[in-house]
Amino acid sequence: GKLKNVAFSGHEHASMKVGGRIHADMWSFPGDSAGVNMIENEDPTISPQDRVGFRRMRFGVKGKLMANMLYKIEMEFAGGNKSEFRDAYLGWNDVPFLQTVLLGNQKRPYGLDHLNSSRYNVFMERPFVIESFNQDARRWGLASYCVSQDEAWNWRYGVFNQRLIQDEGSYVSDHYQMEGAGRLANTWWYDETSGGRGYGHWAVSGTLADPDGSGIAGRAANEARFRHRPEARSSNRWIDTGQITGADDYQMVGLENVWNFGALQLVGEYQNMWVQRREANETHLHGGYAYLSYFLTGEHMPWDRSSGTLGRVKPLENFFLVDTCADGIRGGWGAWQLAYRYSYADFNDNDIAGGIGNSHTLGLNWYWSPYARMQFNAIYGEIDDRNVLEEADDPTSSLGVFSGHYTILGARFMVDF
Amino acid sequence: GKLKNVAFSGHEHASMKVGGRIHADMWSFPGDSAGVNMIENEDPTISPQDRVGFRRMRFGVKGKLMANMLYKIEMEFAGGNKSEFRDAYLGWNDVPFLQTVLLGNQKRPYGLDHLNSSRYNVFMERPFVIESFNQDARRWGLASYCVSQDEAWNWRYGVFNQRLIQDEGSYVSDHYQMEGAGRLANTWWYDETSGGRGYGHWAVSGTLADPDGSGIAGRAANEARFRHRPEARSSNRWIDTGQITGADDYQMVGLENVWNFGALQLVGEYQNMWVQRREANETHLHGGYAYLSYFLTGEHMPWDRSSGTLGRVKPLENFFLVDTCADGIRGGWGAWQLAYRYSYADFNDNDIAGGIGNSHTLGLNWYWSPYARMQFNAIYGEIDDRNVLEEADDPTSSLGVFSGHYTILGARFMVDF
Amino acid sequence: GKLKNVAFSGHEHASMKVGGRIHADMWSFPGDSAGVNMIENEDPTISPQDRVGFRRMRFGVKGKLMANMLYKIEMEFAGGNKSEFRDAYLGWNDVPFLQTVLLGNQKRPYGLDHLNSSRYNVFMERPFVIESFNQDARRWGLASYCVSQDEAWNWRYGVFNQRLIQDEGSYVSDHYQMEGAGRLANTWWYDETSGGRGYGHWAVSGTLADPDGSGIAGRAANEARFRHRPEARSSNRWIDTGQITGADDYQMVGLENVWNFGALQLVGEYQNMWVQRREANETHLHGGYAYLSYFLTGEHMPWDRSSGTLGRVKPLENFFLVDTCADGIRGGWGAWQLAYRYSYADFNDNDIAGGIGNSHTLGLNWYWSPYARMQFNAIYGEIDDRNVLEEADDPTSSLGVFSGHYTILGARFMVDF
Repeated sequence: GKLKNVAFSGHEHASMKVGGRIHADMWSFPGDSAGVNMIENEDPTISPQDRVGFRRMRFGVKGKLMANMLYKIEMEFAGGNKSEFRDAYLGWNDVPFLQTVLLGNQKRPYGLDHLNSSRYNVFMERPFVIESFNQDARRWGLASYCVSQDEAWNWRYGVFNQRLIQDEGSYVSDHYQMEGAGRLANTWWYDETSGGRGYGHWAVSGTLADPDGSGIAGRAANEARFRHRPEARSSNRWIDTGQITGADDYQMVGLENVWNFGALQLVGEYQNMWVQRREANETHLHGGYAYLSYFLTGEHMPWDRSSGTLGRVKPLENFFLVDTCADGIRGGWGAWQLAYRYSYADFNDNDIAGGIGNSHTLGLNWYWSPYARMQFNAIYGEIDDRNVLEEADDPTSSLGVFSGHYTILGARFMVDF
Repeated sequence: GKLKNVAFSGHEHASMKVGGRIHADMWSFPGDSAGVNMIENEDPTISPQDRVGFRRMRFGVKGKLMANMLYKIEMEFAGGNKSEFRDAYLGWNDVPFLQTVLLGNQKRPYGLDHLNSSRYNVFMERPFVIESFNQDARRWGLASYCVSQDEAWNWRYGVFNQRLIQDEGSYVSDHYQMEGAGRLANTWWYDETSGGRGYGHWAVSGTLADPDGSGIAGRAANEARFRHRPEARSSNRWIDTGQITGADDYQMVGLENVWNFGALQLVGEYQNMWVQRREANETHLHGGYAYLSYFLTGEHMPWDRSSGTLGRVKPLENFFLVDTCADGIRGGWGAWQLAYRYSYADFNDNDIAGGIGNSHTLGLNWYWSPYARMQFNAIYGEIDDRNVLEEADDPTSSLGVFSGHYTILGARFMVDF
Repeated sequence: GKLKNVAFSGHEHASMKVGGRIHADMWSFPGDSAGVNMIENEDPTISPQDRVGFRRMRFGVKGKLMANMLYKIEMEFAGGNKSEFRDAYLGWNDVPFLQTVLLGNQKRPYGLDHLNSSRYNVFMERPFVIESFNQDARRWGLASYCVSQDEAWNWRYGVFNQRLIQDEGSYVSDHYQMEGAGRLANTWWYDETSGGRGYGHWAVSGTLADPDGSGIAGRAANEARFRHRPEARSSNRWIDTGQITGADDYQMVGLENVWNFGALQLVGEYQNMWVQRREANETHLHGGYAYLSYFLTGEHMPWDRSSGTLGRVKPLENFFLVDTCADGIRGGWGAWQLAYRYSYADFNDNDIAGGIGNSHTLGLNWYWSPYARMQFNAIYGEIDDRNVLEEADDPTSSLGVFSGHYTILGARFMVDF
């Protein structure tokens, strides 16, 4: 009776979940400076502009297919006209030695803060170095995802094309610009008794990448380019190496540490990258961050030992405020979390002047339920010695090297379903 | 057994509906004139071109979330490459005083004909003034939706950013261009005995808006611009004020009336707007419409008292024509509705020459079922004294002031699911 | 309990399936020539570039509606920013005489290889003439789909607008550029005893088309243009007539033959087109293909008698390789199919030099399950006497007439759900 308009998958051997998320943002820039204005707007008198709108608006489908296979397509519609795909792959479970194998668009395996879902990240935007060395995280590739039987160890590794194609669909070039990347993670301590309120994690990750520094006509642009916004939503990137001319190879190594003691969490990462160039010295880019978060209401950040990433926070009491006819207004407080992050990146070396970034972020998260929360961020930062190019792929179009400081406020509402 | 490929939402605390609609259109312009050709094509010898294709092709997801929350994402794919979102919000039910609260992209609360769903509108396209003062209706905002316990009164109000972002995703500017808007509606008569075949409704709605007349570099364009097509699908807008230079404020007040006597319905609205400008006189724009509709087959237009908008028509007999093996060809006639609308808008005041529009529309709706119908519209209209700009945001690029008349025919097939 | 987050359609009188497909591709061009480089890149020194990415990434909704109606929207997201719709229609079942009738975007009824789903096609890309005479297959139209009670005969016919609108949403022009098209198919032999391992099919199809050769200002571009890539994914079309100036009419007739003897299948099609032009001679374009396929593992290509198209292959043993705790590594081989295709098109006649194409394709298909497979194609071909235009709609912008040969390798992973 009531089930007559149930939705089904396309055929009887596919399971299906239709899920999504909505993130609605507000950002303002109460503090700016001439240097920051040049970097953002190429004009020292025009400050970074405030914004309201959608940060993420996703839905898509995923499920299992006959004979140990799986699939996922998740679309990002927050760009309006500019639809993009995110996770988009087919794969296999229970493969000998390789365990789960995915082919398609998926996150590259480095940078804990990128591997964490945006549904669970403690801060609104990711740190300088984590995003710069892994811009938008997902690439077309083939990767294996493994976990040991006791869940103490997990590892993932694969080969990826370096080009971001979630806006284009394909990569076209005779030079494939591949990389081999991996991450080995260990949950060395996990307090089962308290349901995981105490744990310790470390991981090492890295990539060996082969960008195309040849400049041969007809090929795709060189993928050796590292950049990020000010850990907030601006129109342009505030640290940005530009396309590094003649870059033929780069290597990156990253270290992660997480300690969790009940309501308190300490997290840190550091990443180093070396870029080899034709007719120029090797360039060294590096950076890191550390943060501390604390639940005023006593919850903890859950840990997913199978993937070595943050899990879904469950408030002890959901936030709500409803008018019940019988019992008057009833409510709950939800969960409240305070956090502070320091982030640093140095993208200046030799003739490369991508900028040196220092950023302090104060965060407040208000969890209404496991599936909804508000985030508030207040950011103070500085960008030093950043070369501003008029055209991104032309290093001779420099408008000069600029420095500046800034203050940014952000707020986000989010649900997932 | 048969349920093994059922689709589920992403997690166990979200309900989900996957719904959508398809509207397929045909439009032709049998009558034109030199003035109308200038307005549409900037060339007096090129008449408005006919068109076939999709007016709406939507699907999306909505549902409830743990602890009184709700969510909705509805995508519009009729533009092919140009995907857009429509309703896209998160929200709360049962909030004290505010009742339902929504945050995100939602209809601004003025103009009954815009608040009515396109699934239920009596005419194919909305009247001059209703669309002009509320272009595409939906904006990013925070609004409350309330109804009295006896359903006699309902009201909605909120704050909205004036920029249409369903194609862009975000609004970027230091001036937020906000408005505060609301609507108070009263169903003063509702004949419960006949199941709502008789009712009377009035409402008052309005907005206090703060567009950005400053012209400061780096900010978004001024949102004081009012325009519409000829109540049909043309390529350009036929009444159009252009961006009103120096507009810093505007206020709009609208009145609605609906009377329904069984198969007969009478509807009318009138809206007045006053725009305050820097270094220029206040501008007064206004317009209205009235229509009369009648079901030849005896049905009535249902009324939704909780929102003060039209409901879903249920034909007494569905239209169908099927070949049953046993009983030969069987069929039903569906519901047939005739309608006539007169619409008027005067967007000429002082130096503003957005045009004066007069339009007569004859409509025929053939309802096949509650979820499918055909619409036919025949339109005769005139546009007078419309200033044609070569570039929309440059009032000095005027090509002159033009007048013209036109005849338009339209047909639409629609289903929703 | 477990059903509380089931997804439903939008209302109780609509059924719904949410289905989709993912096709992930790799293409390389190990052999090229100066002529082919001119055709692809307008530069004899730049060879066609390799590519990886998504060929198809689709999901959408379909179902039945109250009173014999049906609907479908299927979106193609493989283009990233450039979303497109595919099947997008509303329709009716069980209509007297017309049986199933669809209105909207649907495949034009000619060319077996285009009517076959990309999920079932034996080769990765479609033959020269089939794609050229029916580019991307789907058009906005109204068509009837019929089958005789004994399933020996099926036929489909309708009227279509010639413009591809799945990227644009609408066609805008005073000349509708319509065509009337149809296909009559006969399964003259079908071995019921073996479950359809033996069958024979022929069909005749054709179109009478009225493109707009007038060149009148304000109208849409002339739709008399026939083109295709090298039966592989290149950036430009390698056979291409350009828009045929002054083309006012064209007629196409196609013949199909299929013989299936167990694991062996023989398929052939030939199509002839005559284009009438203002102030120029009639142009004759034509081409065909034949292929032979064979299952090494004994399966057969199923036949759908109701539509006269290929069905879904069911491997005798699915491919899998899993590590079971109890029984060690277990696996299955899947189904293996070899195929060879010869394809030919002659688009050179009078002053038209769209090119003469000859192509040989060796194919290997590895079916893992009914819903997943890999395809491998190796192609050797030649394009002769192809006029290369600098601007597609300007025949005077010719860069010269070029010939060349090429070798291409392709691989595809696909699932559907």
